Amino acid sequence: MTHNFASIPMQTIGPLRLIGDVEDEVMVPLATYETPLWPSVNRGARVSAAAGGIRLTLLNEQMTRSFAVQADDAQAARRICQSIEARLTEASEVVAATSRFARLKSLDTRIVGRLIYLRLAINSGDASGHNMVTQSAEHLQNWVLTQWPELSYVTISGNYCTDKKVSAVNSIEGRGKSVIAECTLPAKLVARYLKTTPQRLVDLHIRKNLIGSILAGSLMSANAHAANMLLAFYLATGQDAANIVEGSQAIDHAEVLEDGSLYFSVSLPNLIVGTVGNGKGLDFVTDNLALMGCTPNKDAGSSARRLAMICAAVVLCGELSLLAAQTNPGELMQSHRKLERHQPA
Amino acid sequence: MTHNFASIPMQTIGPLRLIGDVEDEVMVPLATYETPLWPSVNRGARVSAAAGGIRLTLLNEQMTRSFAVQADDAQAARRICQSIEARLTEASEVVAATSRFARLKSLDTRIVGRLIYLRLAINSGDASGHNMVTQSAEHLQNWVLTQWPELSYVTISGNYCTDKKVSAVNSIEGRGKSVIAECTLPAKLVARYLKTTPQRLVDLHIRKNLIGSILAGSLMSANAHAANMLLAFYLATGQDAANIVEGSQAIDHAEVLEDGSLYFSVSLPNLIVGTVGNGKGLDFVTDNLALMGCTPNKDAGSSARRLAMICAAVVLCGELSLLAAQTNPGELMQSHRKLERHQPA
Amino acid sequence: MTHNFASIPMQTIGPLRLIGDVEDEVMVPLATYETPLWPSVNRGARVSAAAGGIRLTLLNEQMTRSFAVQADDAQAARRICQSIEARLTEASEVVAATSRFARLKSLDTRIVGRLIYLRLAINSGDASGHNMVTQSAEHLQNWVLTQWPELSYVTISGNYCTDKKVSAVNSIEGRGKSVIAECTLPAKLVARYLKTTPQRLVDLHIRKNLIGSILAGSLMSANAHAANMLLAFYLATGQDAANIVEGSQAIDHAEVLEDGSLYFSVSLPNLIVGTVGNGKGLDFVTDNLALMGCTPNKDAGSSARRLAMICAAVVLCGELSLLAAQTNPGELMQSHRKLERHQPA
Amino acid sequence: MTHNFASIPMQTIGPLRLIGDVEDEVMVPLATYETPLWPSVNRGARVSAAAGGIRLTLLNEQMTRSFAVQADDAQAARRICQSIEARLTEASEVVAATSRFARLKSLDTRIVGRLIYLRLAINSGDASGHNMVTQSAEHLQNWVLTQWPELSYVTISGNYCTDKKVSAVNSIEGRGKSVIAECTLPAKLVARYLKTTPQRLVDLHIRKNLIGSILAGSLMSANAHAANMLLAFYLATGQDAANIVEGSQAIDHAEVLEDGSLYFSVSLPNLIVGTVGNGKGLDFVTDNLALMGCTPNKDAGSSARRLAMICAAVVLCGELSLLAAQTNPGELMQSHRKLERHQPA
Repeated sequence: MTHNFASIPMQTIGPLRLIGDVEDEVMVPLATYETPLWPSVNRGARVSAAAGGIRLTLLNEQMTRSFAVQADDAQAARRICQSIEARLTEASEVVAATSRFARLKSLDTRIVGRLIYLRLAINSGDASGHNMVTQSAEHLQNWVLTQWPELSYVTISGNYCTDKKVSAVNSIEGRGKSVIAECTLPAKLVARYLKTTPQRLVDLHIRKNLIGSILAGSLMSANAHAANMLLAFYLATGQDAANIVEGSQAIDHAEVLEDGSLYFSVSLPNLIVGTVGNGKGLDFVTDNLALMGCTPNKDAGSSARRLAMICAAVVLCGELSLLAAQTNPGELMQSHRKLERHQPA
Repeated sequence: MTHNFASIPMQTIGPLRLIGDVEDEVMVPLATYETPLWPSVNRGARVSAAAGGIRLTLLNEQMTRSFAVQADDAQAARRICQSIEARLTEASEVVAATSRFARLKSLDTRIVGRLIYLRLAINSGDASGHNMVTQSAEHLQNWVLTQWPELSYVTISGNYCTDKKVSAVNSIEGRGKSVIAECTLPAKLVARYLKTTPQRLVDLHIRKNLIGSILAGSLMSANAHAANMLLAFYLATGQDAANIVEGSQAIDHAEVLEDGSLYFSVSLPNLIVGTVGNGKGLDFVTDNLALMGCTPNKDAGSSARRLAMICAAVVLCGELSLLAAQTNPGELMQSHRKLERHQPA
Repeated sequence: MTHNFASIPMQTIGPLRLIGDVEDEVMVPLATYETPLWPSVNRGARVSAAAGGIRLTLLNEQMTRSFAVQADDAQAARRICQSIEARLTEASEVVAATSRFARLKSLDTRIVGRLIYLRLAINSGDASGHNMVTQSAEHLQNWVLTQWPELSYVTISGNYCTDKKVSAVNSIEGRGKSVIAECTLPAKLVARYLKTTPQRLVDLHIRKNLIGSILAGSLMSANAHAANMLLAFYLATGQDAANIVEGSQAIDHAEVLEDGSLYFSVSLPNLIVGTVGNGKGLDFVTDNLALMGCTPNKDAGSSARRLAMICAAVVLCGELSLLAAQTNPGELMQSHRKLERHQPA
Repeated sequence: MTHNFASIPMQTIGPLRLIGDVEDEVMVPLATYETPLWPSVNRGARVSAAAGGIRLTLLNEQMTRSFAVQADDAQAARRICQSIEARLTEASEVVAATSRFARLKSLDTRIVGRLIYLRLAINSGDASGHNMVTQSAEHLQNWVLTQWPELSYVTISGNYCTDKKVSAVNSIEGRGKSVIAECTLPAKLVARYLKTTPQRLVDLHIRKNLIGSILAGSLMSANAHAANMLLAFYLATGQDAANIVEGSQAIDHAEVLEDGSLYFSVSLPNLIVGTVGNGKGLDFVTDNLALMGCTPNKDAGSSARRLAMICAAVVLCGELSLLAAQTNPGELMQSHRKLERHQPA
């Protein structure tokens, strides 16, 4: 029997109450084989809504690619890098000519021996921008190789981009949208919805997400299961879900405030999402984007930014809920057992 | 309009010719929004088949979880850890009692200050084992807390497991199946199918996968786009695809042999797959597993091992093809442009 | 003018009051160009002594080296690794024959493609063991190459050891002594000696050592300046101070206890020290080792273990003091200005 | 008996023949307990001199510190960071007022939750700049806390600097001098001096420095023993040698050129050295700096830059020599045995 589609179970969760850069209430579709994720995210949605909502702050956005070329030696490499930086306007024009949307944001050069890695960052409008930035990189690399014919081609993508790989460069320099989701939960709501206390959740967060992650040799990552929410959200919205690799480098931060309430946040420096491009033309994707008010419009970029922020809110909900569960011995397994008994299929 | 499923486009690629631990020819389903992946993997399948096949070697398998408890001080923590290690047989019985399949493979203890992280590894048969190992951990933690009542509960999952997060511990200690896929390609076939030479592919691999990744601050990762193949394979076979985060830590190795042919391999230390459990009951998953000869049988574990090895072969095909493309200026973008023009939408 | 020695200013600090695995009061020599380190460590020594001392716990000890060999393919590599593991007794005899002290503790094999990295760990008695383990590795590698002549030599040291390099393997698998130093300080003493409160110190530790380090992309490291104390101690005791690279991967842990006192600990998984070998014959080194009761004796290993634990106590003192200073705006710079005005030279 | 100095054996090696940014022949003092380092570096000096010298290229220089402050929430944090960036001229004036030499180069802001980490980079003239940048940071932090009184103090040093700790941020953003040392060695000279061939050295480099380091979970590091040379050079020149921790993150790059000669380079992004400040007033340090032409003069910064480049050349010599030795089974141990028999004691 032939199947033309992998059909991943999908449910709509919510509403999530959003404040800050997005003021709205949204329902959110999540596609996953791990169905306990739905009630888990939903619990986070309910407690945060009851407490006034999830505050969203977008810090930055860009898409990056690094091509590599080879010079005769490091002296030549430095000289050429300096020349490129001095001709940034020309470089920007080369990039702008490749697309209606691509705009050069920055161009970093790294030299190792006689190898040059040029990492370009562009604004890619409503697209996640993988192809757009590759096209920009291709044109820019051609321009570089023409202007400095003493250079030789190494690769169009030198892993200093870096795409779908564990790295430090993305967290530090940025790739995708950088978003912070945060909320403040009174102790009473923490008890009612999450069956725990702010102090216990903070203590767990420190021992698990901070110390445990450091002990495991994690890199720029301090969370419980951000990848789960990212995957489910990415699949439901037609994203290239392999980008959960860098997306998973999320940093939770929790503290008990003076009035005894819980401050909780998730900082996501690498949310790679778009509202146009591969996958977005599928019916359910179009509908899901519309459901969340993320249908692309003329103001290129705003729907993708909104989508990234909703995504960050979902991650916060899932983090809150799982961490709360883990403060109580036995709760995690119990809820898995209960929920998976009735799962589809 | 309500959609109960996210429908990801899926195609069957192959046949892949497999040798070593699996001797067979298999067709492989891949579900992805990034449709150029299909011809890319297919090209790798064709060249490796023409050269005699992809040699698969399974090194290890296990599923892990780390719970955490707190002692009075490091002296107590050490004493208790030594006691636990001395009572490993009892610990094994506790684990064995939790499931027909779970068998304790190893139990590592890490002490930080007065915190103890116990990382247990089990054989989980045909299941990827997330829930099975959590259940094992729960019972073991209860046993530990009962036997040493001076300990207090910290968490059932202390991120030293580590699940779906960028880390070092998984690569070093293992999580999931550890598989190596390798092939040897005569220069003539490299030219015919991959439009490049062994030397150019090796040179690119060194500059991109090794040096570029090091420059990017990658952790235990040296590949071009392993995450892409993992995602497509995981979605098509009902896996928890968030595990591509650790799965992406793959190490390519390429060299030109004395006779001028290309040796190419991918070492994947963290392939987390199963043939039973969440998602496996969906029709298309059942069919896909059957198509690859991975229907679970009485010999618990063999179908999951076979599945992991086929997955590794797919990663090798995709790595070969993309690296080859990147040796040729312009080829990457050109093929994307050509292939995506007619993609399903 | 010719100088045959670099003369680093040295002072003796203390006494440090030690409990746990070492019960003693010791004076500790520290050699450094950064003379504010002396009063800083001394402050930590005074407060911890007033509170009953620094509790020391040694978890483990070993010295490691990884040699590498190449097999025909991964199948051969796996087969040979299994054979080596099956002949561990023989391997132990090969190692034992290389030295009076070297004893094989463990032998790990890692396969990448067709490359095999064998990481051997030995007990090295009172020596830090760099040369001893290289000699063991050399003999073991010769034995391996003789027993499996189909293998070829790659290197005697394959960086999976790893020596004096930033890595994950040392923290996880161990290299040198693994020691935890901890103390419990009543709030009154924290106020008197450290001019701060337990809560403020804990808050700083979380934001600086945990979150700040994660943000910086640190690897298995969460401390303020462990490397400073390690360097000064290593230079004063004739150690190979380049090992502060891995030594610096220390993890502080701090919490406010129920009675309001401060629990503070430093976990140092990679303390590479010895009391015999290069540098130990210099007069001042011999005297310094004697001063601390670390003159090597017949009970091979005990003086090196004692030395490692004293070293860990010094690190704790310096961490406590600097963290305390940083809780108070302006204190750090003020003390540097005051102390360096009268510094030698 | 009291010793006021730790006296580390020191020898002068060379001459090193330098080209590129430094055109000179220099003798270099190295202080170490590991005396085989002297002939090892010397061998590298001889072969590189015979081949025309070591080409030095300085890419960048700066000293950094990150302080941290806390805002009410991420919205406030973003707003304040944007305001700070808009008032960069004022910030520069604040920094410039703290010292005759300190000049603000850049000011990066990172937000996690509601925490702000501000990483300032300054030019520090001939000083390594630890204290200078701390003083700059203190004044800048005071200014920030005064201008935005809604912020609260967290720490003067938030580990995003990062000083003497394993990290990614230093390699990517820079801390200290970034220098590349490279040389091209004809095969004949490689055979005569290094007893090996270019191909064998390259093969070893790939398997040890690249693959072995990746396997070990190294972070932005691909070298054999850079820390050894850094330590010996830092001790001989009055540096704060704890900075070898970040200094050790060096990346070797080697290839066989078309004419069969060996291209070899070391890229050192984090060389933290100075010619004024702590330690520099000691007689042997003054003499050693003079010996290398690194006495500080009115052109603030040039002597420190020269010193950093000489240091990079020393690292290259040591890398070349040890890698060459490891291509030959048995050579490493043999030379250690021979050299340490007559070592000072």
